[in-house]
Amino acid sequence: MMLDKLDLTKTTDEAKYEKTLAEYTDRLAVLQRTLRDQKVPTVIVIEGWNASGITRMVHEIVHALDPRGYTLHAIEKPTEEERGRPFLWRFWLKTPSRGRMAIFARSWYSRTISEMRQKHAWEKSLKGRMKRINTFERMLADDGTIILKFFLHIAKDVQKVRLEERERNPRTAWLVTPSIWNLHRHYEDSLPVFDEFIAKTDTDYAPWTLVEGTDPRYAILKVFGTIIKTLENRAEAEAEGKQKKGKQKELVKPKKNPVKRRSAPEKGVEKNDLQAQFANLQAEMLDVHSVLFKRKIPLIIVYEGWDAAGKGGSITRLTRFMNPLGYYVVPVSAPTAHEKEYHYLRRFIKYFPPGGDIAVFDRSWYGRVLVERVEKITPEPAWQRAYQEINEMEEDFVTSSNGGIVKFWLEISKDEQLKRFNERASDPKKVYKITEEDWRNREKWDQYDEAVDEMLARTSTEIAPWTVVESDDKWFARVKALKTVIATARNLL
Amino acid sequence: MMLDKLDLTKTTDEAKYEKTLAEYTDRLAVLQRTLRDQKVPTVIVIEGWNASGITRMVHEIVHALDPRGYTLHAIEKPTEEERGRPFLWRFWLKTPSRGRMAIFARSWYSRTISEMRQKHAWEKSLKGRMKRINTFERMLADDGTIILKFFLHIAKDVQKVRLEERERNPRTAWLVTPSIWNLHRHYEDSLPVFDEFIAKTDTDYAPWTLVEGTDPRYAILKVFGTIIKTLENRAEAEAEGKQKKGKQKELVKPKKNPVKRRSAPEKGVEKNDLQAQFANLQAEMLDVHSVLFKRKIPLIIVYEGWDAAGKGGSITRLTRFMNPLGYYVVPVSAPTAHEKEYHYLRRFIKYFPPGGDIAVFDRSWYGRVLVERVEKITPEPAWQRAYQEINEMEEDFVTSSNGGIVKFWLEISKDEQLKRFNERASDPKKVYKITEEDWRNREKWDQYDEAVDEMLARTSTEIAPWTVVESDDKWFARVKALKTVIATARNLL
Repeated sequence: MMLDKLDLTKTTDEAKYEKTLAEYTDRLAVLQRTLRDQKVPTVIVIEGWNASGITRMVHEIVHALDPRGYTLHAIEKPTEEERGRPFLWRFWLKTPSRGRMAIFARSWYSRTISEMRQKHAWEKSLKGRMKRINTFERMLADDGTIILKFFLHIAKDVQKVRLEERERNPRTAWLVTPSIWNLHRHYEDSLPVFDEFIAKTDTDYAPWTLVEGTDPRYAILKVFGTIIKTLENRAEAEAEGKQKKGKQKELVKPKKNPVKRRSAPEKGVEKNDLQAQFANLQAEMLDVHSVLFKRKIPLIIVYEGWDAAGKGGSITRLTRFMNPLGYYVVPVSAPTAHEKEYHYLRRFIKYFPPGGDIAVFDRSWYGRVLVERVEKITPEPAWQRAYQEINEMEEDFVTSSNGGIVKFWLEISKDEQLKRFNERASDPKKVYKITEEDWRNREKWDQYDEAVDEMLARTSTEIAPWTVVESDDKWFARVKALKTVIATARNLL
Repeated sequence: MMLDKLDLTKTTDEAKYEKTLAEYTDRLAVLQRTLRDQKVPTVIVIEGWNASGITRMVHEIVHALDPRGYTLHAIEKPTEEERGRPFLWRFWLKTPSRGRMAIFARSWYSRTISEMRQKHAWEKSLKGRMKRINTFERMLADDGTIILKFFLHIAKDVQKVRLEERERNPRTAWLVTPSIWNLHRHYEDSLPVFDEFIAKTDTDYAPWTLVEGTDPRYAILKVFGTIIKTLENRAEAEAEGKQKKGKQKELVKPKKNPVKRRSAPEKGVEKNDLQAQFANLQAEMLDVHSVLFKRKIPLIIVYEGWDAAGKGGSITRLTRFMNPLGYYVVPVSAPTAHEKEYHYLRRFIKYFPPGGDIAVFDRSWYGRVLVERVEKITPEPAWQRAYQEINEMEEDFVTSSNGGIVKFWLEISKDEQLKRFNERASDPKKVYKITEEDWRNREKWDQYDEAVDEMLARTSTEIAPWTVVESDDKWFARVKALKTVIATARNLL
């Protein structure tokens, strides 16, 4: 696919245009309702040169749609809040729910190119960006999202004529800024960048369509035709139950040495004065936290573990002397009906910390491969895919925000759990902590055991390793957790 | 209530502090669970001078709470996105859902004072702000929210000592900026402003507690004691089913002359060439829209009307040639489970337009006094209260964003509705538009009729009047709607 191979002289006459557009509009309206009922989300990306007709194209698409079923996102510079997050954060939050369409007038592509341009040695980081974009799109596609991407191409002289026209029209003159003219002068330099970018992100699950943009009528019919064909194919496949899911490669490799699980520390480990040690470590934590805060480095701490392993107590002690304005706890329970309408990772990404904050997840996205696997809430192909997706999501966070991730598995023995359950049940102050569900989960100890093993083996990466916390002794566990957080944070400074 | 009447020498000794705090912490944990189960939301506001101990206070409160049940909001300058919205917009979005607590470290109060300081003639606009804050708090309280507000007071010399201490500590020195010293020098000027502000916003439904802040231990116990007493009283009242709702005064008066409803235009109105007229008006609309966009003036357009009155068609035509990047349509249906966890107005306020945008609501908050009234979804006292609340919300939007609101009631005759229902039912292309529910609603025509009358009479205000659109003739209706939007927009320029 090369932009300069396109035949930019293609046109469509007025009569054919009107007739075909009317027919396409009818078909699109029907398809929109069909896919809504089939709960298939659609992402349509419109990219292209300045003055290539992006606004008009978006205009024609949205006017063919029922406004109840789409959202239009005009992508400009990120806001202050968005600038503090990983690059794809704001796009994750703009993904459509099941059955809806999201139309992007410019997107993660334009943003990458315009942000990269300002950087030294940008070709190098461009490669990383493209990989992350492919991952993002693949995750959405694997979750059932249709992704269609269009690039509107015009020649340099056509761009010049259009920009001059806009300058003459008082209604649009203010839009033609000096930086747009500057980009026009660098047209030839941009061409190979666009070409490379398109080539590297043209995938089975999110293909590009290059669009000859000289004649807007030709361009509009080509885009409509492509959208309709893709949507019709999908609607048919869904109706026949044939929609196949994407394959996956292991792109982020787990560490070689499996993580060992123990519920008690190895022999010989000093267990004296744990509470005094803990107090000293808290002062250290306070210092480290204030440096993270000043340098705007974000940190994620994930707590997973058996019921009654001591997650709550460990979190309370960990945060006891932290500045409450610099951290927050995200308690995770079953997704709400609203959250289920999106990719399962979206509700977690939403709470990823901005620079300087610590986000403590009390349970996490690992529910996908633990409770959702054991309780058969999620079908096997979906949770099997999750190991890889989680590794990629964590890598994306660390890479794009220069932050860190600490993941704790709180391990206790089956006997210790029973002891704690009985204590809770017999103490009126603690009885609210124990539910029928805890007892039911305990009955499935072996199945959870297997799921934990596989999780630790497949998602302990260099960038986000698991730490098993031996939790039969609560104070030992609290000291180890705090030490691990401090060590990880120091590594980031 | 006067700050300089407080006895700032009060202290609490260490032993009493430790003992009482431990007892309070236990009680607060129990109360948090009780109110969660009772689905009562709580707002706690901590305000005060710089260095008065706000951070430590927040710290102690949140550490006494289960992190699963509260959210802490540290309020700083608004973000770019927030700056484009009405002042209270971001606070509406931070209100707690039923059963949760929201703790504000600084709030709408600090923001008002710091924003107002920069303005000329700020005392005048301060009055309007206080009124709007009272309204905001009253709406939340009427909806069942507990609101507690604390002001931490210290003397000027104590503030000086604390700021100097912070400057000496390398961990905190960077926080003491020149503007903080500047505020310190203006301590005496600020005192009467705080006094007035507190006096005018000290209400039954959202009372202030002044807190002697010289000794942090004394301050913390006072705040905890007040919180616990208030929460305990409410928990008891809820348990006994005694919680009484606030009274209301008619603060925003509806217009005197009732709006007349007609489904067909008065005789003598020119009905020729409506489609040609419409085409000319669209060009005019395009011009007006681009001026609104450039001057960053927001506009809300509300569509209400009988089923099959032509809302969809009117919206499509109205927006047909608008720049899609400058408007959006908000389709309104029954609230989701998630939305029901908040004040009913929050889900609409969330979609209020930033400067320069047009938000078209396809149905709206008026559902509260139409479908929710007729179908008995909402109890009478709540929908009765809604007329006033809606008037206030609309006034707040117009006043604080200098925007406009157009409200359309699309009126058709009962016969015309039947004709359109039958047309839809017999046309395979339109049959999806007609449902069982439409027929059921039609059976309740008279009840809806009464509700519409009352809505038009009680919510047609000077600032946001209703326009009845005679819709038996579709093109007449479309022309009238477009003319009204253009006229309202021109008035804003």
